[in-house]
Amino acid sequence: MSTIQEYDLLITGGLVVTMNPGLDLIEEGYLLVRNGRIIEIGPRSQLRPAIAAKRVLDAGEKLVMPGLINAHTHAPMALFRGIADDRELMDWLANYIFPAEATAVTPDFVDWGTRLACWEMIRSGTTTFADMYFFEDTMADAAAQAGMRALLSQGIAEGPTPDSATAADGLARAEAFIAKWKGHPLIYPAVGPHSAYACKPSTLLRAKQIADQCAVPLLIHLAESQSENRLIQEQYHTTPVRHLGKLGLLDKNLVAAHCVWIDEEEIEMLYRHDVGIVHCPQSNMKLGSGIAPVPHFLKLGIKLGLGTDSPASNNRLNMVSEISAVAKLHKAAALDPTVVTAQQSIAMATMGAARALGMADEIGSLEVGKRADIVVVTLDEPNALPLYDIYSHMAYALESSNIETVIIDGRVVMENQVMMTLDTEAIRVQARQIKTKILGSLSVPHKGH
Amino acid sequence: MSTIQEYDLLITGGLVVTMNPGLDLIEEGYLLVRNGRIIEIGPRSQLRPAIAAKRVLDAGEKLVMPGLINAHTHAPMALFRGIADDRELMDWLANYIFPAEATAVTPDFVDWGTRLACWEMIRSGTTTFADMYFFEDTMADAAAQAGMRALLSQGIAEGPTPDSATAADGLARAEAFIAKWKGHPLIYPAVGPHSAYACKPSTLLRAKQIADQCAVPLLIHLAESQSENRLIQEQYHTTPVRHLGKLGLLDKNLVAAHCVWIDEEEIEMLYRHDVGIVHCPQSNMKLGSGIAPVPHFLKLGIKLGLGTDSPASNNRLNMVSEISAVAKLHKAAALDPTVVTAQQSIAMATMGAARALGMADEIGSLEVGKRADIVVVTLDEPNALPLYDIYSHMAYALESSNIETVIIDGRVVMENQVMMTLDTEAIRVQARQIKTKILGSLSVPHKGH
Repeated sequence: MSTIQEYDLLITGGLVVTMNPGLDLIEEGYLLVRNGRIIEIGPRSQLRPAIAAKRVLDAGEKLVMPGLINAHTHAPMALFRGIADDRELMDWLANYIFPAEATAVTPDFVDWGTRLACWEMIRSGTTTFADMYFFEDTMADAAAQAGMRALLSQGIAEGPTPDSATAADGLARAEAFIAKWKGHPLIYPAVGPHSAYACKPSTLLRAKQIADQCAVPLLIHLAESQSENRLIQEQYHTTPVRHLGKLGLLDKNLVAAHCVWIDEEEIEMLYRHDVGIVHCPQSNMKLGSGIAPVPHFLKLGIKLGLGTDSPASNNRLNMVSEISAVAKLHKAAALDPTVVTAQQSIAMATMGAARALGMADEIGSLEVGKRADIVVVTLDEPNALPLYDIYSHMAYALESSNIETVIIDGRVVMENQVMMTLDTEAIRVQARQIKTKILGSLSVPHKGH
Repeated sequence: MSTIQEYDLLITGGLVVTMNPGLDLIEEGYLLVRNGRIIEIGPRSQLRPAIAAKRVLDAGEKLVMPGLINAHTHAPMALFRGIADDRELMDWLANYIFPAEATAVTPDFVDWGTRLACWEMIRSGTTTFADMYFFEDTMADAAAQAGMRALLSQGIAEGPTPDSATAADGLARAEAFIAKWKGHPLIYPAVGPHSAYACKPSTLLRAKQIADQCAVPLLIHLAESQSENRLIQEQYHTTPVRHLGKLGLLDKNLVAAHCVWIDEEEIEMLYRHDVGIVHCPQSNMKLGSGIAPVPHFLKLGIKLGLGTDSPASNNRLNMVSEISAVAKLHKAAALDPTVVTAQQSIAMATMGAARALGMADEIGSLEVGKRADIVVVTLDEPNALPLYDIYSHMAYALESSNIETVIIDGRVVMENQVMMTLDTEAIRVQARQIKTKILGSLSVPHKGH
């Protein structure tokens, strides 16, 4: 007689989309979870009888997939959602977002903004997010309490930011932040110099040094808009990618968001140095920034993730919507429906993002040994009926409202659309109060409540 | 003492977005409905006391907006959702969709496909849809039973279609269909010759004659893809728009879907003849068909609606998602975030669509005398918090899952997300059964359940 083992969670039934290297689909599957990790995965017919799990979840007739990864955002900016839309990136940043941040961004703002963002992300199937913002320590507390996995980088820029009078202050905060959170099961610290235009070379070099010494990723915005490229051209007589290359920042620990305005030689450089790229289609579209050469990235096999960017530029934190947008955007741009397939789009939000963020051993697919970050999706809603091709379904038909249950690190954080880790009513009240305060202190045009 | 009148429905409170000519917003509004029409609308402070309504709906803290209009679709194709994605339009049509239609499309298919589509459309805030398909009489029955408003056109093409051996049969069906449904409060009949490439000039002329005689709109696909333009060039040595112009089809009753591949002179022609255009951004994107010159249409003031196109090419029937996509697509294409604003995008799905379909006196805005097609939206979900600008919110932040209650012609068809007119469980069962039958009779590649 075999020993009956004790598991934390057993998920049975359902169509399991593994996103493992063989892209295996399991028609009626099961997953066993212990200590936050997937211990077994396979067809339910192979599940031994008399398995004792603390918790059993029936996923029959449902879809079971890896948690989605939002590989680039500024989560607390959920509190700025819609504050000044339909404006060009540099105008939007310089005349609306930076002044709003200077006035409004406090630890309290970051705390409630992060809770609001985690609510929206969990609700739409995201289990990990990568972030660059301020008061990152407050953010880490809020994300960990929400039960979310997060790669968090303390934001660094010249001149005063909401939490630092100088870049040196920001760099010091980054060091302290890493020291405090390194080794946490959910929070992965990183360094986040804003960009080549908002940080001097000396600041970028010091940020890189900290990242290297602490063995954490370096997150940066790169070649997002034509205005950024013009600024770098004026100041350094080169392009943003080459500028970082000269400084020695291009390596496998660099996670570069956007990479819209880069030429073929630069794409090769990023590939050769094993840089991770995060594509943010809907933010790039909404800001009119441009269309990144994603088919080219895919052809080379660059580590490529997908992100929403900030909820002030998107204006959602919904990776289901982002997956759908990325496939369609590049078909439209290339006049070719075969570029950026449904499957490739889903990969960008799962394994591709995990690779880009240096987390491929931990997340991005449903495989034995990986963290148990799992999403259960109903196929009973009208938009999900009927089902012919599961990848087409996931990329083009599903909506975030189809997501029923979300598990992070083996813990059920949303069950049947009920949030288990967040006080949603308190977040509602605070979001509205903070917005009223922001409107009182700024001259932002607004229409509505 | 004033006479107390009897009303069917009173909606009180909430932020009312009228989309009337002055784009009035009413912070705390009320609407009174009788016999399917809006009788009064205004600030709640002006509501007389002791109003007796059969039904009172509290919209406090919510958004009240006009029902959305899906101005171009083929609703029953919901049953083909995802059947063969990531393929070019003409390949997709000729090698997958047309063969699937030849085998699968029966009155039963159209009946259940329409029910499924109405469920998805109501669920996502659509109250009117314009359609071109087959067995249109069956479709009208199903739509009317679902309580939806629909502009339905019997599809016409050369050679055999699912319901007609010849174009002449299709034309005869169209005449009979119009005679039967003209004057129905929810169903507005029309004529639907497929396109200039699928219909001979004589067929187009006869369709136009029927439309003129019966005073109904003529719906057509126009200049959707480069392959369409090549076909017309080969056969008629001109462009699709000029071809229709020569035939005398361009007038205020023509509703032309797509208009992607048209030059400036053709845009002027369509404007001068007061043709309505329906833009389908996500279908055009997904099929790699191209990007319609929407900023140009808007500058001229062309009657411009928005549509999902078929759920086989989208793959959703979700106008909330379409509004978001249209704003972003054209900003990306123009590298300019000021083109196609949030407000313009919402207008395309409300008053713009109503104008394009010739229904501007009936629907498209919340105004006294218009049909009571009203959507109530919760602002309590995380993606809807906080609210700064109502139009930005509607275009970029809201999701279809925020829609709570839908009223069509004064009748509540969805209340707190519960469908009142459709047997959803029966639709689920039928959708899955019909899909299994289709897969059995076709050699379509498929992955999943």
